[in-house]
Amino acid sequence: MTGLAIFPVRDLPELQEGDDLAQLITERAELEDGDVLVVAQKAISKIEGRMVRLDDVEPSARARELAGDGDPRRIEVILGEAKRVLRTRGSLLITETRHGFICASSGVDASNAPEPGTVVLLPVDPDASAERLRAQLHELTGRTVGVVVSDSFGRPWRQGTTDVAIGAAGIEVLRDLKGARDPIGYELRTTMIAIADEIAGAAELVMGKLDRVPVAVVRGLDAGGDGQAQELVMPAERNLFP
Amino acid sequence: MTGLAIFPVRDLPELQEGDDLAQLITERAELEDGDVLVVAQKAISKIEGRMVRLDDVEPSARARELAGDGDPRRIEVILGEAKRVLRTRGSLLITETRHGFICASSGVDASNAPEPGTVVLLPVDPDASAERLRAQLHELTGRTVGVVVSDSFGRPWRQGTTDVAIGAAGIEVLRDLKGARDPIGYELRTTMIAIADEIAGAAELVMGKLDRVPVAVVRGLDAGGDGQAQELVMPAERNLFP
Repeated sequence: MTGLAIFPVRDLPELQEGDDLAQLITERAELEDGDVLVVAQKAISKIEGRMVRLDDVEPSARARELAGDGDPRRIEVILGEAKRVLRTRGSLLITETRHGFICASSGVDASNAPEPGTVVLLPVDPDASAERLRAQLHELTGRTVGVVVSDSFGRPWRQGTTDVAIGAAGIEVLRDLKGARDPIGYELRTTMIAIADEIAGAAELVMGKLDRVPVAVVRGLDAGGDGQAQELVMPAERNLFP
Repeated sequence: MTGLAIFPVRDLPELQEGDDLAQLITERAELEDGDVLVVAQKAISKIEGRMVRLDDVEPSARARELAGDGDPRRIEVILGEAKRVLRTRGSLLITETRHGFICASSGVDASNAPEPGTVVLLPVDPDASAERLRAQLHELTGRTVGVVVSDSFGRPWRQGTTDVAIGAAGIEVLRDLKGARDPIGYELRTTMIAIADEIAGAAELVMGKLDRVPVAVVRGLDAGGDGQAQELVMPAERNLFP
């Protein structure tokens, strides 16, 4: 591998429910075999109609209690997407989503929503969303590409968010170095690299937050595979921070 | 910005204490203003002599107790680098290093050590290491570049490691979107992006683990600044997972 190139897919329109994202991408980028497309979660959620109007939400007593001076309807949506609440501070909730991801607000976001008073939810099955897009891109172009659906997650102990993979198709998600040996023959202890997360973070560097660029292409990875982002969820028996 | 290119600096020799890494890099890569060099922690630690021979270590009673069937001398080194131990499982210790980083084994690593029976410690002050390299590269080439010192950290709740920044110089480390508004005028809640960590992870995609490529160049970022990786350590008052 000589290196990577990462470039944005420019001039996509504001996305609406039902839009054909694969078509919109192929009109704007010349894909090659082995490319990995990174698509911001909000783009996927919008075309899948994963939006909720807060005016349609009736907050529960628990949501009112947790909301503090925040909007209890938004908290209600967050609780609806959560398996459990790990931490609260003010109206910030750290939750475990139905997918098993641990993040702020169950991934529910009001910024970049199509209109004020609307919030955007994570896709129901982001791995399936990625696979659908991958198949559509193959159908349209004949190219075999990978897809990562990315979102910005905070981390314990480290400031700032990084983009990580919440959905994936057609790529290696975890690179297993188990049994691999370094040049002096020492068996490596760190056996797995979360390359799908590194790919998502790398793409964020070109996608930014305000440039309305929800898709980037990563070229040169040599990371084909059949992994899913679901593999990134730490199994309960290995979780040291339950 | 049209996109990013990330490429490895090839054919570096096995590094030794006292090696002039800046010189070795400039002999192998044509740097440009604005480039960010990502250097694996182990490369920095080796040239700074941050190695310990296990035969020289006398394990304490606590190290013997924690070691289980692991090497108590290695545990002793890990404890010596730690402010506190957060979790243990078998001979795996999750610790807070003297720098405030929370990671496995205080970042002490036996893989890729220069010889068997030796472990490699994190640099004493990785931000200073980054700044030193940045200044030396400027001296040698006249180019204004950024430097990130990277290491592979595990994360709670997500499988696999990603490379993150443990040292930085000449770059923006946290991109603050506070007050920035998205296209419909909604003030973004996610105010900070840990771009130094995303840069480290992106570089890992080309550096790999076994290719003995401890340096990569990230070009096209437009991320100049004067941040330090120390800013990535979550302040105690904001830490929801103490």
